[in-house]
This record gives sequence, structure tokens and C-alpha cells, in this order.
Amino acid sequence: MALNKQPYRGTRDFFPKSKRVQDYLFSVMTKTAESFGYESYEGPLLEEVDLYLAKSGEELINEQIYSFTDRGERHVAIRPEMTPTVARMVAQVHRESSKPLRWFSIPRMMRYEKPQRGRMREFWQLNCDIFGAPGRTGEVEILQVAIELFENYGATNKHFEIVLNDRAIVDAVFKRMMKADEKQTYRLYKIADKSKKVNEEAVKKMVAEVGLTPEAENIFYSYLQLKTFADVDSFLKKHNENEIADAFAEFIKLTDANGLNEYLVYDPSIVRGLDYYTGIVFEMFDKHPDNRRALCGGGAFANLLQIFNEDPLPGVGFGLGDVTLEDFLTVHGLLPNLDNPTNDVLVTFQEDNGLEASMNLAKAMRKKGLKVVTSLEALKFKKVFPTAEKKGVKFVTLMGSDEMAKGEIQLKNLATKEQHTFKITDLEEMLKIMKA
Amino acid sequence: MALNKQPYRGTRDFFPKSKRVQDYLFSVMTKTAESFGYESYEGPLLEEVDLYLAKSGEELINEQIYSFTDRGERHVAIRPEMTPTVARMVAQVHRESSKPLRWFSIPRMMRYEKPQRGRMREFWQLNCDIFGAPGRTGEVEILQVAIELFENYGATNKHFEIVLNDRAIVDAVFKRMMKADEKQTYRLYKIADKSKKVNEEAVKKMVAEVGLTPEAENIFYSYLQLKTFADVDSFLKKHNENEIADAFAEFIKLTDANGLNEYLVYDPSIVRGLDYYTGIVFEMFDKHPDNRRALCGGGAFANLLQIFNEDPLPGVGFGLGDVTLEDFLTVHGLLPNLDNPTNDVLVTFQEDNGLEASMNLAKAMRKKGLKVVTSLEALKFKKVFPTAEKKGVKFVTLMGSDEMAKGEIQLKNLATKEQHTFKITDLEEMLKIMKA
Repeated sequence: MALNKQPYRGTRDFFPKSKRVQDYLFSVMTKTAESFGYESYEGPLLEEVDLYLAKSGEELINEQIYSFTDRGERHVAIRPEMTPTVARMVAQVHRESSKPLRWFSIPRMMRYEKPQRGRMREFWQLNCDIFGAPGRTGEVEILQVAIELFENYGATNKHFEIVLNDRAIVDAVFKRMMKADEKQTYRLYKIADKSKKVNEEAVKKMVAEVGLTPEAENIFYSYLQLKTFADVDSFLKKHNENEIADAFAEFIKLTDANGLNEYLVYDPSIVRGLDYYTGIVFEMFDKHPDNRRALCGGGAFANLLQIFNEDPLPGVGFGLGDVTLEDFLTVHGLLPNLDNPTNDVLVTFQEDNGLEASMNLAKAMRKKGLKVVTSLEALKFKKVFPTAEKKGVKFVTLMGSDEMAKGEIQLKNLATKEQHTFKITDLEEMLKIMKA
Repeated sequence: MALNKQPYRGTRDFFPKSKRVQDYLFSVMTKTAESFGYESYEGPLLEEVDLYLAKSGEELINEQIYSFTDRGERHVAIRPEMTPTVARMVAQVHRESSKPLRWFSIPRMMRYEKPQRGRMREFWQLNCDIFGAPGRTGEVEILQVAIELFENYGATNKHFEIVLNDRAIVDAVFKRMMKADEKQTYRLYKIADKSKKVNEEAVKKMVAEVGLTPEAENIFYSYLQLKTFADVDSFLKKHNENEIADAFAEFIKLTDANGLNEYLVYDPSIVRGLDYYTGIVFEMFDKHPDNRRALCGGGAFANLLQIFNEDPLPGVGFGLGDVTLEDFLTVHGLLPNLDNPTNDVLVTFQEDNGLEASMNLAKAMRKKGLKVVTSLEALKFKKVFPTAEKKGVKFVTLMGSDEMAKGEIQLKNLATKEQHTFKITDLEEMLKIMKA
């Protein structure tokens, strides 16, 4: 029986055209991260499962992780996220590194999920993190990186917004104002997270099951009504949480000074339930009605290094998946046309004995930094231009029997149709035309 | 107990400095492949194990593959090589593609091996393949790609050589001249492969066990003595294998016309035992006495698509691993210094209230395409230059209380020590200096 030609479920074959799209996505990520001085790193594809047990969410471990036992009885997993790896790596070097550390990576990862729009089992995810930045500057900078990244794809505040919250606020409301215990707080995270996706009645039902006082329930409902930074400020001050209010106001003042506030919206439902977040938490949303979903998420954490017995080091980071990003750019018409490759020149010959001269011309052109596609057999004149188009070249060279006899080639510019005759050895003269 | 900070055995953490080395290795691979018009592709990390059972060597499947059963009971493996994936992908599209197809990829892969010099469990491997090239041109071009790649790293024929053979020759000698059956041929592949690594006596012992006639044994020993292309030619003609001799001579004439022969050495021990090779087989060797080993290998195959019930399509390809490549460049002193990143400018301020102005200047500079590292807190003058050096910047900006008062900054060129004063809004004037 013939083997299956299709890729494993939930993974993708990147034929050259889709690979050009991926390369474009990644090059803008790299360019943006590097424009802020972020340095690229990479980690192993496999990590020991213990690393995820320490910090990842339950769903990830129990249902989504690709884990197995290797031939040496080690229990390992294909990484489902990058944060544990970056924490492990930072733990090795943070003591001798000058701060802040600015790192980025575009790791490939896997999660066992049901493939659907915007979700694959195998995906890539830009991860940007800053460690050891003073005050709230790291939080501001990470938002800046995320926003400028999308601007570099051609997106504006017509296309996306960032909904954000501060875990310090969430904890002030849940733990101090509402006096919820740890278990109740955890359930409130889940309810807040779901509050915009279900109706009011469903929220009330969930809240009733938490076992709060009526006063606490009322505080929770008022909290869920907060819509603006001004709302939050007066709410917190009304409940005597002036310190938290001022710290958040300081952050908002900085984002405003950096021109970010046109993108920012306060949202009490954003809590990002993982226990390592301690400061700003945020998600970027597509504004397009057909693609209304989170594009990326991130936040600030006081101490990811604890599990390695290292001193605390504050950090802020975000992750952006390639699948949702591509959907976003497609739905808004922001992807450039990458149907064809781009090459400089197609070198052809029209007589069977032209191969050697032609290969040598191509070699000399490559040495000059050109991208050269060669025809490896005599190419009929009428096939030259369709081939040139498919290969995305700007120039073609032709060599028929006349040219062969004189040691010449014809160089043709495909856009202008201009044609020049050169001695085959006159590379410098050809370059003047080709680089003009 | 604190978690282990080290990566899983046989894998690597790429901190920014080693990531820069990897990026350098990969960028030269990409640049070279694209200079020949090869198009980039990528495949899934996991493939179904059946794909490898069909074509990979026994050792790979039985001892080295990372395979496991997924949550949906599929038997999958982390790819240990790329050829089965590329064959699967080509099988999907070859009918509607114009030939030749020129494809390259730099996939990451895993094999369960004992980590040692030049060998890791996780590695990357450049794969270049050409499908459907006429005559022997594909074989010549693939050798050209491999050679120009190494030339683009700065290597010459002082540093490496390519030892090669033709499976058509090997099969003519073993099957026709020696009349070995399939099982014997397979054993002869293994003996040829080992013949340069063990002494003469050991070779004789292995040959004796194959059960050949004395005449066949003598032919085998004469074959193993062949050293030059001329040797091969006369040996084949002596045994009336003129057609095979001429086909090989045609190939060597083309490589000569392309200036490749300074790198090429005939070697009867190169057989590359996998059954899919049918034409040229080759390995690149480091000439350095401390690193005498194969850097890359490849060959021509008549039909990789058979297992998918597709029509035959001839191909030629090679694979080059990142670990051996890095060792090669290191031992020959060919790696550039990548200790520090490269950035354009470090933006600093010397008074606490300089943060906002400074972040805005940095933002404006990024919009102009500069790589900008910002100081996120007031940076003492004496710390500015050590920081600038670590960040690999060409310029720094400074803003003390005098400059703050006047809305100015100082721009300093670190190499020339030249310093200029600008209005903080005069970005165009700063760019003239920075891009000069």
C-alpha cells in the first residue's frame, strides 16, 4: 500500500510559497525585536517534564503536552510553551549579566489540540521578554514592542487594540476588598475570564457558587463594570486602595507619554490565571468582526526563577503565535504578495552546447552577490519568459547560436524590455545595467 | 528541591552569543542556496513512523529514532532526517511543478545518540535537493552548491575535499563484474565503507566471510585500490564496462568545466549504503588533522517517490549538520567574532526626569530603521561607555541637566570620539551623521 502523502494531523507542510509567508512573518518579528536591542536566543525542543509541572497550567500538562519516556528512561516533553525554558536559561546567567536582559525567540512548539481555525498542533510563537528593568519601564517597553511589531506589519488602531489589567489591582479587589481566600480567588479568576463570553445570569450562577458575602459579591459586580482607566482610579480610591491606584496611574502616564494609549483599553476580565503574573497582564485583540480573538498575550511576573532557587528577578513578556497572526494579516489584507520568489537573473542558452558557458556565467554572477537561476538544458525562446516570471527574476540572459559564435550573450530587462548585447566575459558591464 | 537548570542531555541552550553563531551559519546557508535559486521549504517536526520504516536505515529506526504513541494512538517520530519528508512533500506537487525543482531547508532534528564531539541528540541540517534536472547536471549543481557554500564561509581546497563515487560504478563492479547477489552486495557495501577505517587483515577477514569466488575477491581488492578518475576509467574499460565509464567521464568533464575538480577525489570506499542512491554519492571531508571527518554527504537517487506510488523523478541532494560545520569553522579559525551584538545607538539620560524624552527619541530613531538600545534609568556618565561596548553600538546619545534644559542631546561616535549637539527633535540631522 502506498504511504500517506499528507502531514501528521495538526501540522503543516510549508511549500515554498507558504514558507515565504512564514519567513516574512518571522523577519518582521526579528527586525522589530532587534530595533529595541532584544537579543535572539533558542532552547531545546525537548525539556524534562518536571520543568512544566512546576509552572504550567493544568490543562496544558494533563491534556495538551506531548510527553514520552526516552530510551534512557527520562520523562521528556516537546515544549508546549517557551516561558519555562527561558526561565531555566536566565537562571543560569542572570547573576553575571547586566540588566535589563532583553531576549527574544521564535520557538516552534507543539500542543495536542483539536486543529481548528487559528489553532494547530504545531506552531511557532514569538516570545519577547525583558528582565530586571527598573520600575514600570519593562511593562511599558513590552507593550511598545508588541504595538510597534503590529505597526511594522502595517496595522493601526483600526485593526487591533490591547485590553489590559494589573494583577496588583485584581488581587487588591479579590483578596483585600472582597476578602476572598486563595481557593475563592482562583475561582474568581476563572469567572472574570469567562464574564465577557457568557450572559449575566451565567455569571451570577457561577458567583453564587463561590460562597462570598453579599458585600463581596457586589464589589465583584462593580469591578466587572469598570471600563476606563478613570473608572479604575476612582473605584480603587473609593475603597482606599490609593497606593495601588497611584502605581497604576504612574504606568498609564508612561504609556501615554509614549503614545501608546490610543491602543489601550482597561478590561477587568483580563486576569491571565497563571499564578506567576504579578503586574500588568494584557491581550491584543483583532478588531475585525470575522476574527474577533486574542492575537497575543503577556504580562509582568515578579519571580520566575524561584523554582531554581535563584534570587527574584522581575520580568515582563509576551507571546504571539504564528497561526493567529497570519489569520489577522490575511483578514485585513496586510500580507504582501509572496506568490513568486525573487531572483535577480535567469541564465539561459538556446543551443545544446551552451551549458558549460552558461554555468560559468552563472557562477561569476553569484560571486557578485546575485541570485541566479540557471536553465540546465537548452530553453526554447518562447519558454524563456514564462519561466522567468515563475522564478521572479528581473533579468534574463539568452545565448543562441549567433551569440555562441561571437562569445556573447543578450541581457534583457523584463520590466522595461530593454535589451543589451555583451561579451560573455564583460560581467562588470552587465552589473552596471543590473544594479542600476 | 530546586529544578535542574541544565538542558536535556544532548541538546543545547543557545544563549545570545551562540545564537548569533547559529544565525551566521544559517544565513550563509540561506544566502548560498538562494544564490542558486533554491527555494526554502519546511515540514512538520513529527512524522508518522511508517514514513521512516519505508526508507531509513535500520540503525536509525531501531536505535536512534525518538518515537512514541500520541494521545490519539498514532505512532509518530520526531524527524531524524529530512529526506522522507521532502519526498512526501514533492510527491504531493511534482506533477504540476515545472522542473527542475530546487528546494532547501534547515530543519531541526533529533536522534537518540551518545553525545560526543561533533554529535548532539538535537541538531540542524541544511538539506539541498534538486529534482528533475536533465542528465548529470543535477549532480554537478549539487556539488557546486556544497562547494560554494564552503567558499562563502571562507574555506578553500586547503580546508576540505570531496570524496566521491558513482553507485552505477559500484553496482557494475559488485553485481556484474563480481556477480554478487543482493545479500552479498549489501555486505560488500559495508566492507567498502569500513575499508579505510580498519587494517588490510580485517578487510580480508570480512571479505572471506562473504562467500565470493577467488576471482571476485581479486576484483574487489583491485577496486579498493582505485585512486583517480583515470584509474576508474581504465579499470571499467578493462572489464568491458564502457558505458558506465563514459557516463562517469561525462560527469567529470562537466565538473571540470565548472572548476570543481580541485576539490574532487575519487574514493571507492564511498558507497553510502542506503538503497535509494543510484548515481553519484559523495562526502565532504575536513582536511584538518584534528577534525578529520565527514562534514556532509549526499548523492543522486532515481526514485524516492515510489513509496507514494508516484512516477519516478530523479533527484540529487546533500545534508550538512550544524554541529560538524561549527567544529570545522572553529578549528580553521573561519568563524567571525560574534561576541557582542551589533546595534546602532544607545540612548541614555543622566537625570531622573529624562526617561520620557529619551523613550520618544528612541522611538523616532526606530521608525527610521535604526537598532536602538535604551537605558531605562538615569545612567551615570562613567557607565555609558562600558554599556555601549557590551551592546555593540556605534553611537550613544547623552542628555544631562544642561541638555534637558535646552531640549538637546549629545550624539557621540564611539569609534572617532566625535561629538555633536542636536535639538532633540532634529532627527534628520542626527541621521546624516549616523548614516554617514
